[in-house]
Amino acid sequence: MPDLAVRFAQNPIIRPADVVPSRDGMEVACVLNPGAFRFQGRTGLLLRIAERPVQEAGWISTPVLDPAKPGGIDIVRFPESECKWIEDARIFSHQGRGYLTTLSHLRLAWSDDGVKFGIETKPTIMGEGPLEAFGIEDCRVTQIGDTYHLHFTVVSDAGFGVGYISTTDWKTYQRHGVVIPPPNKDFALFPEKIGGYYYALHRPTHHALGGPYIWISRSPDLLHWGDHHCVARPRPGAWDAQKLGGGAEPIKTEKGWLEIYHGVAKDSQYCLGLLLFDLHDPRKLLARSELPIMKPIEPYELTGFFGNVVFTNGHVVDGDTITLYYGASDEVICGATLSIKQLLASLEA
Amino acid sequence: MPDLAVRFAQNPIIRPADVVPSRDGMEVACVLNPGAFRFQGRTGLLLRIAERPVQEAGWISTPVLDPAKPGGIDIVRFPESECKWIEDARIFSHQGRGYLTTLSHLRLAWSDDGVKFGIETKPTIMGEGPLEAFGIEDCRVTQIGDTYHLHFTVVSDAGFGVGYISTTDWKTYQRHGVVIPPPNKDFALFPEKIGGYYYALHRPTHHALGGPYIWISRSPDLLHWGDHHCVARPRPGAWDAQKLGGGAEPIKTEKGWLEIYHGVAKDSQYCLGLLLFDLHDPRKLLARSELPIMKPIEPYELTGFFGNVVFTNGHVVDGDTITLYYGASDEVICGATLSIKQLLASLEA
Repeated sequence: MPDLAVRFAQNPIIRPADVVPSRDGMEVACVLNPGAFRFQGRTGLLLRIAERPVQEAGWISTPVLDPAKPGGIDIVRFPESECKWIEDARIFSHQGRGYLTTLSHLRLAWSDDGVKFGIETKPTIMGEGPLEAFGIEDCRVTQIGDTYHLHFTVVSDAGFGVGYISTTDWKTYQRHGVVIPPPNKDFALFPEKIGGYYYALHRPTHHALGGPYIWISRSPDLLHWGDHHCVARPRPGAWDAQKLGGGAEPIKTEKGWLEIYHGVAKDSQYCLGLLLFDLHDPRKLLARSELPIMKPIEPYELTGFFGNVVFTNGHVVDGDTITLYYGASDEVICGATLSIKQLLASLEA
Repeated sequence: MPDLAVRFAQNPIIRPADVVPSRDGMEVACVLNPGAFRFQGRTGLLLRIAERPVQEAGWISTPVLDPAKPGGIDIVRFPESECKWIEDARIFSHQGRGYLTTLSHLRLAWSDDGVKFGIETKPTIMGEGPLEAFGIEDCRVTQIGDTYHLHFTVVSDAGFGVGYISTTDWKTYQRHGVVIPPPNKDFALFPEKIGGYYYALHRPTHHALGGPYIWISRSPDLLHWGDHHCVARPRPGAWDAQKLGGGAEPIKTEKGWLEIYHGVAKDSQYCLGLLLFDLHDPRKLLARSELPIMKPIEPYELTGFFGNVVFTNGHVVDGDTITLYYGASDEVICGATLSIKQLLASLEA
């Protein structure tokens, strides 16, 4: 199947060098996986900025939020020979304790044309409290009425789960704590109530029974979630054989709720595909992409901090056109457009 | 510290041989981990009955619920040489797919004196639907008003999570689905609302970041849960170094909410200890046992289906006396009494 995404000619549109580090001594390793939204006529991106201390040969050093330390941050530093990589280059352990290699925060960027973005020079939202000590990542933004709902991954030595913040003005933020317990991420909120309930996709994980499967849950109030069902699993031998997870909010179409999700193949290649859920009962999966709609093919998608990755958790929709913002190789941010009609047709082919 | 549990002279009070298998060809491998409650003047236990086909040398066979098969059950059978044990003898994998070695259901037993139980001859509650295909386990029973709230582990190839059923008469049961997504178990509901919310302990697990830690969450309606916080972790070198999880409902005392929990040491020994939570804000942990209050010491606790285990998720309270029902060596059910005053004093020592 041909790649259905028409990439921006200007890609990558945001690179680490475009971002001012949050403090002295820190380097921006990656800028990736933005949430996307429209506000007062402009396109907003809520970037994930992943920082670390400038690295020295033979050592791994990583920042951990700690209110007891000067500046609220502790720099943890270990000889590389004492560290073990877990799964890939993004998590390591030292003496049995797990750490991330970078600390992420969220930062706003604004654009009039959806392509050229001005990035704020300070963090917009930093991790707070013990459950966010390793940072916050991959924020989805869902607008319902005048309120923007931000769901992101909280990370700490207690695991990773789903955090929730809301805002109406992008200046003041209301924190609602952890709404789905670990290990869980890739929370995608449906943008309206269905049959009296909010619905969301999320992605628990486990290594013995079950695994990185997509589940759906419902909530009366966005604060408390229940009625959990498993709706999609990796498929052996397929492009999503290793794991998969939801992207940004599902898009309402005449055929159903259309979700652009990521799948990971055995060789750790991240591609994008589609799930289609019933309009009236989103627990019913109607269709699923046999092949990816978008694969890493461009140089910036093939090589980087963690290469061979396209990953999205943000888009804006205008009529038939989805403008997709995505992280490429876990290092830079890119854009592409897709046609909803074409996507739906690909599910029928 | 001396063991604070006074064991029944009659232990074990229920053994596999006392239980009628649910169908021909099946053997009861274990009867364990009962929920406990009082109803119409009697003590009720909701037993976990773990069954499997009679095993043949060189093969592992295990039952899986499947409505499409005759009798609603499929017997999966693999050469032992093709199977891999995961963690311990209770989970194995074949060609990358995980299975349990037994299929559990819940069954009522009744007693006038709390020691001698009459066991029903048929299953009371069987697993139902795809999320319970590997059975249901370790049911907690919490009475609030006239309603008994049953929280148990649902198991399937989609993982293990927390299922919820309620009853008022122990004859009809209302199913409420999966209320906490996988991987999670050891759900212990506080027996009254605190500050307008229900609270519960639960135990997510993960192998990279975080781990088998106890979390607390709240709910407005018992159906949807949120505001998740991590309240207790394993302690390196201690009797709960490997993992830990909540037991039955916390007990209200003048000093706080008293929870009897299980901890697992590096050598997989399961012991019991105490957590004390603030009466008005149970997210605050006030005290925790340095040493176990109860360890496997009797022959039936040291040897069995999975030896060196005392595990509880059921008790009844009368004044200062807790009558604790517990699984010993994952094979039989035993009883013991404990004094609340003594337990609280042990936390101050």
